[in-house]
Amino acid sequence: MLKNMPRTLIEQTINQIGQKVQVAGWINSKRDHGQMVFIDLRDKSGILQIVAGKNQAQDLREEDVVCVQGQIKNRPPQMENPDIQTGKIELEAEKITVLSKAATLPFALKDVPSLSLPVLLDFRPLTLRSERVKAILTIQEVVIDSFRQTMKRLGFFEFQAPAIVPTATEGGAEVFKIDYYGHNAYLAQSPQMYKQIMVGAFERVFTVTKAYRAEPSYTTRHLSEYVSLDAEMGFIDSWEDLMAVCEIVIRDMWSALEQKCPKELSLFGVTLPILSNNPLPKIKMRQAQEIIFQRTGRDNRNEPDLTPEDEKEICLWSKENYHSDIIFITHYPRSKRPFYTQEDPSDPQYTLSFDILCAGLEITTGGQRINDYQRLLQNIKEWGNTPNDFRFYLQAFQYGMPPEGGFAFGAERLVKQILQLENLREANAFPRDMGRIDNRLNG
Amino acid sequence: MLKNMPRTLIEQTINQIGQKVQVAGWINSKRDHGQMVFIDLRDKSGILQIVAGKNQAQDLREEDVVCVQGQIKNRPPQMENPDIQTGKIELEAEKITVLSKAATLPFALKDVPSLSLPVLLDFRPLTLRSERVKAILTIQEVVIDSFRQTMKRLGFFEFQAPAIVPTATEGGAEVFKIDYYGHNAYLAQSPQMYKQIMVGAFERVFTVTKAYRAEPSYTTRHLSEYVSLDAEMGFIDSWEDLMAVCEIVIRDMWSALEQKCPKELSLFGVTLPILSNNPLPKIKMRQAQEIIFQRTGRDNRNEPDLTPEDEKEICLWSKENYHSDIIFITHYPRSKRPFYTQEDPSDPQYTLSFDILCAGLEITTGGQRINDYQRLLQNIKEWGNTPNDFRFYLQAFQYGMPPEGGFAFGAERLVKQILQLENLREANAFPRDMGRIDNRLNG
Repeated sequence: MLKNMPRTLIEQTINQIGQKVQVAGWINSKRDHGQMVFIDLRDKSGILQIVAGKNQAQDLREEDVVCVQGQIKNRPPQMENPDIQTGKIELEAEKITVLSKAATLPFALKDVPSLSLPVLLDFRPLTLRSERVKAILTIQEVVIDSFRQTMKRLGFFEFQAPAIVPTATEGGAEVFKIDYYGHNAYLAQSPQMYKQIMVGAFERVFTVTKAYRAEPSYTTRHLSEYVSLDAEMGFIDSWEDLMAVCEIVIRDMWSALEQKCPKELSLFGVTLPILSNNPLPKIKMRQAQEIIFQRTGRDNRNEPDLTPEDEKEICLWSKENYHSDIIFITHYPRSKRPFYTQEDPSDPQYTLSFDILCAGLEITTGGQRINDYQRLLQNIKEWGNTPNDFRFYLQAFQYGMPPEGGFAFGAERLVKQILQLENLREANAFPRDMGRIDNRLNG
Repeated sequence: MLKNMPRTLIEQTINQIGQKVQVAGWINSKRDHGQMVFIDLRDKSGILQIVAGKNQAQDLREEDVVCVQGQIKNRPPQMENPDIQTGKIELEAEKITVLSKAATLPFALKDVPSLSLPVLLDFRPLTLRSERVKAILTIQEVVIDSFRQTMKRLGFFEFQAPAIVPTATEGGAEVFKIDYYGHNAYLAQSPQMYKQIMVGAFERVFTVTKAYRAEPSYTTRHLSEYVSLDAEMGFIDSWEDLMAVCEIVIRDMWSALEQKCPKELSLFGVTLPILSNNPLPKIKMRQAQEIIFQRTGRDNRNEPDLTPEDEKEICLWSKENYHSDIIFITHYPRSKRPFYTQEDPSDPQYTLSFDILCAGLEITTGGQRINDYQRLLQNIKEWGNTPNDFRFYLQAFQYGMPPEGGFAFGAERLVKQILQLENLREANAFPRDMGRIDNRLNG
């Protein structure tokens, strides 16, 4: 196709006025004006208007992939389109070569924002091409990349956590079982054990990995497979070090999004959730419940956790009182945290743990871990687990482990909150849930 | 522990002569000299000699985690150790605080290089702390990071491929079955289908992801879960574009390793596999077999693939004739490649596909794909598959797909070949195989 001249990306054509170029991409739309046909050609960098003769364009339709040679010209002033980057120019087609024909579309790509979720996902290979879906995944890429950059800057070592694990005993959410050469194995609910083990070797580690949750429920906030941004940090002075690092992660991420994604944010008509210029607010879970009771009369003061409604309410309170959509909730009860969570020495029913809520949704969980082998062993038993199932993990603590702790951000939850999506499924390229693996299960 | 003064990393202490510092880490070794005790303290940045009084150090043993306050001093000249970065200094301990006690070690960390593989892996949380294992994982980190940096520089978009897939029909290696809410699902053998789908939206994409192979065999070259460095590229002129990108990936990676890992490479006493200054050599598989026949008398000229011995032999030939440990083998037979592989128009029994061999081992597979919907559909049938199982994937081609192709590097195989490890298992932090998930299965 492109042998005789190099391909020019559409965003570069604005610097090529008067020149002959070759562009290639998908036919985004086509407008027939008698002997003249106007085509909007789309490549990954943008959209360019092609002017073609009727004969050149008569068989073309949306999503055909074509290669066009011709000259870049200024548009007549009255024909300029200020909404697109190339709005002042157009390409006068000399030759159009079809690289791949498209079948008739089931819907126009511009209608993707109004599709129902099942249609959006059943036709994912097609809907991925829409501006909306590409914007979401671009935000996801920047969120993950920004996490990685911050971690590296702070001296964290990146490792690859395994997904296949031998025991289903971390507790909490349900796990997927694998037939592993005739044995039972499971998909990791998180890289928790492994990142803690790695602290014993590298002190500060992180991993971008999949976490799997076999929760048999449909919510707008859960996926069966999601991207977890996990970090663990040894030689901490206190668990407050962990919150400080989380705050740096978030501030860096917001800067990266502002710099790299203004177009994507404006497409969704959103601004980033507000970050206070002061340190982010931190309150204990029990205080949060008290505040919610005062504000709403809803008395969850003896509940072991915040409800989704509580999370929304306390974020509103944070915004009103601290000008921050993001707030740390600390000191969750011991009974609601995993066996490895450090108790608060001044109030042992609670833990040195925290969640971060962003505009009403939990996006992060973290806390200090027990680094004393005997204490950990005792907790494993107290939580009803078998120490032998944890002997691999326990080794790390048996042979000397510094004070440590960590946290995990849910990548899709961050994207959901940043773009104010209604459903987490939109924030994953190929979401899996109870009823869906691509277009399977129900079908 | 560190409240009263900040922690100094050991590598920084060489700039702190005469100053009071606080360091923290693991006791790497301890030598008793009567009233004086010498401790080698290890943190992630290096090793520092601590001089302590007998009383301060009597209860300490290897792998205890301690925090030490004291003054950095020059060593007496005759006591300098040129082998370590901090060999001219030592820390005179004023206060030693134990942060975590270690149990008696089953072996000394310095003996890790001589451990058998099962012991090395059964005690992974401990052996990870050895210089050898940390070096291997550091090389892995640089290999993966370098791949990512090159891909980004070349305009590839990073996406997150799913691991849970609905069908086990890509063929080739066996797959792991998952109980998915009462349905059957599988672990992805590769992100192949998804990266191709993504090309329809982003043109050039890559993913760093896990691939799963349920091969019921023990070899030194296979893992059940490995890290795949996958890329896919649309709007190619020809499949040679793919080989050109692979060559850039490798050259960048070698530069990154030379710059960032001289210590790790020299620990293993290796130099990087030789890259020719000329373009890397490329020969057809049939030619390779002919050369092997000429050199060894081994007649595999009608075999559909190279054997492991063939791969070693042709790399020797490449080194002798092209001064390159790395060689492209091209034109594998159609019957040995997946249904989506483009045939060579000039010889349709062969394909526009390639492997890259590095010092005797395949590290990459790639090729041009069929982007024509009808042709793809026909091949799916011809390979004995059910088109309906591929309807999600086929959508991408149904609605217009440019000429495209891609490749995948095996991260652990790269690390194995770079460090000349005997067994691939060493190149993964937590390797899984038929007999092992951590220290499970046989136990």
